[in-house]
This record gives sequence, structure tokens and C-alpha cells, in this order.
Amino acid sequence: MGLTRKLAEFVSSLRYEDLPPEVISEVKFCVLDWFGVALSGSKEPLVDILLQVLMAEGGNTLASIVGRSEKVSLQQAALVNGSASHALDFDDVNTNMMGHPTVVVLPAPLALGEWKGCSGKDFMAAFVAGFETVCHVGLSQTRKHGARGWHPTATIGHFGAAAACANLLHLDSDATTASFGIAGTQAAGLRTSFGTMCKPLHAGKASMNGLLAAQLAEKGFTASQAILEEEEGFTHTFTPDGNVAYVPEGLGKRYEILDVKFKRYASCFGTHPSIDVALALREEGLKPDDIESVHAIPFPGLYDAISIMKPSTSLEGKFSLPYTFAVAFVAGKAGEDEFGEESLKNPEIIKIRDKVTMEKDEKIPVNTSHVVVKTRDGRTIERRADVNQVFKDSKKKEESLRNKFFGCATKVLTDGQSEDLYSSIMELETIENLGSMINLSVTRGASNG
Amino acid sequence: MGLTRKLAEFVSSLRYEDLPPEVISEVKFCVLDWFGVALSGSKEPLVDILLQVLMAEGGNTLASIVGRSEKVSLQQAALVNGSASHALDFDDVNTNMMGHPTVVVLPAPLALGEWKGCSGKDFMAAFVAGFETVCHVGLSQTRKHGARGWHPTATIGHFGAAAACANLLHLDSDATTASFGIAGTQAAGLRTSFGTMCKPLHAGKASMNGLLAAQLAEKGFTASQAILEEEEGFTHTFTPDGNVAYVPEGLGKRYEILDVKFKRYASCFGTHPSIDVALALREEGLKPDDIESVHAIPFPGLYDAISIMKPSTSLEGKFSLPYTFAVAFVAGKAGEDEFGEESLKNPEIIKIRDKVTMEKDEKIPVNTSHVVVKTRDGRTIERRADVNQVFKDSKKKEESLRNKFFGCATKVLTDGQSEDLYSSIMELETIENLGSMINLSVTRGASNG
Repeated sequence: MGLTRKLAEFVSSLRYEDLPPEVISEVKFCVLDWFGVALSGSKEPLVDILLQVLMAEGGNTLASIVGRSEKVSLQQAALVNGSASHALDFDDVNTNMMGHPTVVVLPAPLALGEWKGCSGKDFMAAFVAGFETVCHVGLSQTRKHGARGWHPTATIGHFGAAAACANLLHLDSDATTASFGIAGTQAAGLRTSFGTMCKPLHAGKASMNGLLAAQLAEKGFTASQAILEEEEGFTHTFTPDGNVAYVPEGLGKRYEILDVKFKRYASCFGTHPSIDVALALREEGLKPDDIESVHAIPFPGLYDAISIMKPSTSLEGKFSLPYTFAVAFVAGKAGEDEFGEESLKNPEIIKIRDKVTMEKDEKIPVNTSHVVVKTRDGRTIERRADVNQVFKDSKKKEESLRNKFFGCATKVLTDGQSEDLYSSIMELETIENLGSMINLSVTRGASNG
Repeated sequence: MGLTRKLAEFVSSLRYEDLPPEVISEVKFCVLDWFGVALSGSKEPLVDILLQVLMAEGGNTLASIVGRSEKVSLQQAALVNGSASHALDFDDVNTNMMGHPTVVVLPAPLALGEWKGCSGKDFMAAFVAGFETVCHVGLSQTRKHGARGWHPTATIGHFGAAAACANLLHLDSDATTASFGIAGTQAAGLRTSFGTMCKPLHAGKASMNGLLAAQLAEKGFTASQAILEEEEGFTHTFTPDGNVAYVPEGLGKRYEILDVKFKRYASCFGTHPSIDVALALREEGLKPDDIESVHAIPFPGLYDAISIMKPSTSLEGKFSLPYTFAVAFVAGKAGEDEFGEESLKNPEIIKIRDKVTMEKDEKIPVNTSHVVVKTRDGRTIERRADVNQVFKDSKKKEESLRNKFFGCATKVLTDGQSEDLYSSIMELETIENLGSMINLSVTRGASNG
């Protein structure tokens, strides 16, 4: 049995009762983190443009847009919520998937679950089905998938959205296999779009296309029966050196979701360990004027993605190791507010940015960056940071995610509404109808319904 | 100036007045042929499934579905009409594009033009803008694009739909460039989907995604500025050995649309020259029982696409040289009616099919097939057919296309309505509002409006 069918059997049979407590806890953090970044992202111009186009298209008002008052169709909600939640590049990460799982896995079943009035438990099982799927598909590819020019969040994400929707629709393993076939043949997303509105659009399109795949498979639409591993299939065509014989060891026993990483900074994940170094050096008292040069050696997997040396837009800035390092060092933090237009023009930030050089070294472990700073007074400071170190303390983790959520949510919602949404997510397994939670995430403007 | 910008400048400036008479004449044939195959395809089960899903999604009733009574949104019309018109694999072909131009170029501007009340002249210019675009993008790739596993109609088609819509929306060259960036980063479609409902879906998705690209670009959505040629762009990622320095010689002077091929048989274009041989041998009096063996050497570009030896579904049958040869030889024709379930089970057809062997030979010219038949009485008959030979006589061409159109259209429309639609298309340049023509292509069932 090939990977496609193995994943389909797992996806079609997974239920809430199968999930270990630590997985349930991690799901809530993913959902919490997603609502925060989606709320904050809902104010971005790209969301306005998408909604202008979709409002002219029209649709039944079946599902909500987080942080907005509009109701739209299921596909439209998946498209907009997926794009909005990835707009700030502040959403969670999984290195096996080589991308951002929740922005592609969550929006489609959220829309479907709102419309169908699903329970929190059903939604959680669907989410995990999608999450595990993107991780195993990611593991069956290689780093060359991204290096060839693909945006894994987008390409691999299609399978996660399809899996989550297939699970929520209770498709059997045959129909789930077909949904993978329909999703995989729609899979798209070029890395060259990084730094433009198309990068977040990728997440929205993966969500929407994966939903469409499950909707069509439910009605008997025919498709490849082994899209991942067959000759001319996904792996063969997207990643010629990928592993078509990949076996998803531990599926349903060891959960990949436990390796999710939450972003503390509003920039590409590849820049994070260098930002950790910048903040630590600042904390230790190093001043901008002390710096002669900075030489950064980030982990190679995302090197090409973060090597924009002189970004000219806020979006490009999130994919610039030199710029993000400089922002963090000068501002002392690296949240969404620090990556605005003002920072781009800030001479102090530009001065540090232009002192940063980069080197690619295949020996640097994943999630790690090695940084060498030379000071004006002749010292050499070497530091290495590993983003895995963070969040090992579960209390600190909960506090950090809570703070991030409220920082994002209260930009759009009232404090009271943010509190209610927080409580609702933290008790997700008790929710009988997903609509009651989603309703807390929308604003009360004029309705189009 | 790179290819993306060069195409954008051509697309944004092309107007009806620029089109030579022979191009205008060919456009009408493309439109005629498209309406025929779309009408015939509108009865296929995949169209019912798509419409079930889309009706639940809902949408403003802005555009028509050919051969149906439903009205849907623009994106939905592009999706369904694109899929329906490719459902029978009976639509036109361009070998420079390495695929089917009209099913991806026409549906989106048709929907947009109906909604905006565009003139026939504006629609024709938009169509040519899209057609030339897919041909030049195709020329910038290589045969390896398809050999790697991509379905060029789908992948390259995205640019054609975007170009046609950008022209019809009168986007300037900057916005048209952005529309290419948005289209290219959505480009998708795996050849492994051949023989399933996903192959026609590809054409619908390319149409819909290209329309979305133009709609978003019109509102200022940002995207790559050189998607075709840049590092990590379309060519680099989809066709690593493609020509990123490709120069579209003759753009706006020599029109690629003049090289369009219309299908006379309802199967993959790669099977056509062998079908020509089958029909000629039958015409000459060869009988099924005379045949000992058939050895076919088709042109190599589509070899892999048509090498299904024992197809098990009607769709697979269209991608089987042995089966299509056998069908034509036994039935004496190879239209849609000959490729149904009955032929699949016909013992006489199966007997011939199983006598056909295939060989790949890079020396066989494009659009050609070399066939060697051995007879039971010891003769060896060698034949070579070139599909380019057909349609050199313009009268025969017009008659053949007229017959094909009525054969398809009258399956869905009354004879009178088919006549009116034919006349309307043949006078496309006189139409003031595209809606009047489109209205002739829909049925008068219960409306969802």
C-alpha cells in the first residue's frame, strides 16, 4: 500500500477519542495562535482586495471571515482566512512539513465546521488529520522541494486542507484518496512570490483548493488513486529526488503536531535564531555603535528564502536576515509593529543592516543560527541560538502564547471579546457548535448577509 | 526587458483593429469549435458534480454556463465552462503551446465579457491576446515540461486566461505583469490526472485562476514582476532546462493562432495521425480479419500521454493509441459517440487493440505517425500521416468545422438555436453585446437566478 492510501486510511478513521491529551493541548495552542495571527492579519490591504473581488462574485453567506463582519461562501472563507492568517508571516511552523501547517490546515475545516455546526471535538480531529498529513507529505519530499523554487506551505498544504475537510465530511478512504488526487493536481505556489501579496495568497489558495478537492470527492469526482507516489505523480514531478517509497512510520502513534513551532517574531522562521542572538546581545549591553560587522550563518534549509539583503517593502523585510537582525537589535523586539514602513527607513536600522553578511553552511543544524559579531574595539563575539530551546518550559510557553494572542487580537476585537474567544479556544473540546466560537472572532460591522 | 514584461506590453495594447483578416477568421473558427465541444461536454457527469458543489456555495448570477440553464458568478462560470469544454478531449490544439489553447483562453473572458456587456470585437482581441501568450510561454519551455509530469494546457494555460482577462479589463502593462505573477504562482496540473475527471478540471481551474489573477491585479494586488524568467520563477521551477532568455520574435506580427489545429477525433491529439492511417486503410478495403499486427510510431512529444495499452474507462480510452486506432478501424469514425462504454467492451475492437504495439522514435516529426501493418496473407503496409495536411483546403475546413459544430450542438440545443448560434459566431465582429451570443448557447430549463 502506497503513501497516498496509507494517509487516506489514517485520515478517514481518525476521531477525537484517538487523540492523546498532549495532542489535544497542542491543538488548542495551534488554534489560539492561528486566531491571533488571523485577527491581526485581517487588517492587511490584501484582505481588502480579496474581499472586494469576492463580494462582486457573491456567494451564500455560509461562513465567517475572522476579524471582519462579512459572511461568505465556504471556499471564499477558506481563501480569505487562509490568506489573512499568513499575511504577517507570524503563524506557526513545522520543519518536517518545511512550512506553515496551521494556515493551510485550519481555515477550510473551520468554514466547513461553522456551516455544518460541527462540535469542537470533531473539528480538533479534522485539524490533526490535516496536520499529520502535511508533515508526512513533507517528510516524503526533500529539502530540494523548496530549493527548486516551490513554497512548501502552498504545495504540500493542499493535502492538509483536503485531509482535514475529508475527515470532517466523514469521507471513506476511497473518497479521501480521491480528494488527495484532486488536491495534488491543483498544488501550486512559487517561492519567487515571497515578499509579495501572493505569498499569503498561497495559503488561502491551498485551503480553498483542498476544500474543493474534498467537496468534489464527496460527490464522486474521479482522480488519481496514488497521487503522491506514482510515476508522474506529485513527488515525481515536484521533487524528482523525493522518496516515493516513503513509509509514514508511527502514523497515529507518534504525533507530528507535537513538533509545531510557534513564532515569537513576525518574520520568516529562518530569521528567528539570528533574532534571538540580536536580542541577547542587546540584553547584554551591546550598542549599535559598538558593532563593526555581523556575520550570520543560518541553518541552510531557509537560507535562500531569507537572503534579501536590502528589502524595499515591509513584506520583503520579513525575508531579510540582515534587516530582521537589525530591527531586533535596534528596537529590542521583533513583532508586527517593528516591521512597518518606519523601520524600513530608519537610518539606525539601515546602518546595522548593511553591516550584516551571510554565509551558507550545510553543517549548521536545522532551526539554528551561528552569528559572529566583530566590535569596533576589536572583540569577536560568537553566538549560536537554537529556536528549539524556547517553549521547553510549558508555563512560559502558555504565557508567551497568551501574550501573543492578546497582542494580536486586541488590535481588532475589544478586550472582552478577546477574553471570551481565548476562553472558548482553551475549552475547545466542550464546544457543541463551532459557530459559537467563530462568532466571537468577528466584528459587528454592517453585514452583507 | 524580459519575456513577462514583453508579453504584458503586447497584451495590454492589443486591440481588434490590430488583427489581420486571417486572424479574425481563425478566431471565429476557434470560438465555433469551442462552443461545439463545450455544448457536447456540458452533459458530462463531471459538470453535474461541479455544479452541485458550486450551487451550494452560491454566487451572484453574473454569467452563463454553456448548454445549461444555470447562472453563476464569473469565477464559477470560468471553472465550469473551462472544464466542460475539455471534458471530451475534442477541443483545439496548438503544438507550440504543447496543449489545448481555447479551453483555457476563452472561458474567463467569455464570462467577464457577458457580465460587462463587451462587444464581439473586444472579446476577439482579448482572445487573441491570451492565445498568443500561451503559445509564446509554451515556446519558452521545452518538451521536458510535459515529460516531467506537467499538463501544459493546465500550467501554461493560467497565463492565457490571465492575459485575455487583463486585455478585456484594459489593465495597463504593470497590472498585466502583476496578473502574470499571480497566475504563474497558481499554475498547476499533473499529467497523471489524464484519464480522470481532473484532466478537464485542469482547464477550468486554469481559466478560473487566470481570471482571479486579473481581478486581483486590477485592484493592486502585488506579485512577482518577472514570473516567467526570473530565478525561482515559472520556467526555472517547472522546466529547469527551459529558455529563460526566450525572445517572443514576431509578437503582434506573426500570429501563432494561425497554427491552431482543430480535432476531428474525440481523443488525445497524439492519437490523431494514427487514426488517419486506420481510416485510410479501412477506406482502402482492409478488414479486421486481415490484420496480423500493427506497429505504430507516433511523434514523440505526446508518446507517454497516449501509451495506455488497455484502457478501462472511456476517458482512459482517449489516451490509448492502440484503442483509438482499433475504434477508428472498426467503426470507420472516431467521434464522441465512438468512444463510449460500448466500444470499450466491443470484442472486435479489443481484438484489434491487442494487436497494436508502439515504439518511441525521436526522429518522427511532430503531428505525424508512422504505422506498419502486417497482414495475415504476409503483406507489409507502411503508412505515414501528418495531421497538418488536413484543413489546407479552406472550403473543406469550413465544412468540416461546421459539421463538427452541428454534430455537437444539436445534442443539447434545438436545430434552430444551433443555427442561430452558428450565425452569431460567424458574425462575431458585429456583436455589440456578447450576452446576445451567449444567450443562444444556454438551455431554457429552470433558472437558479
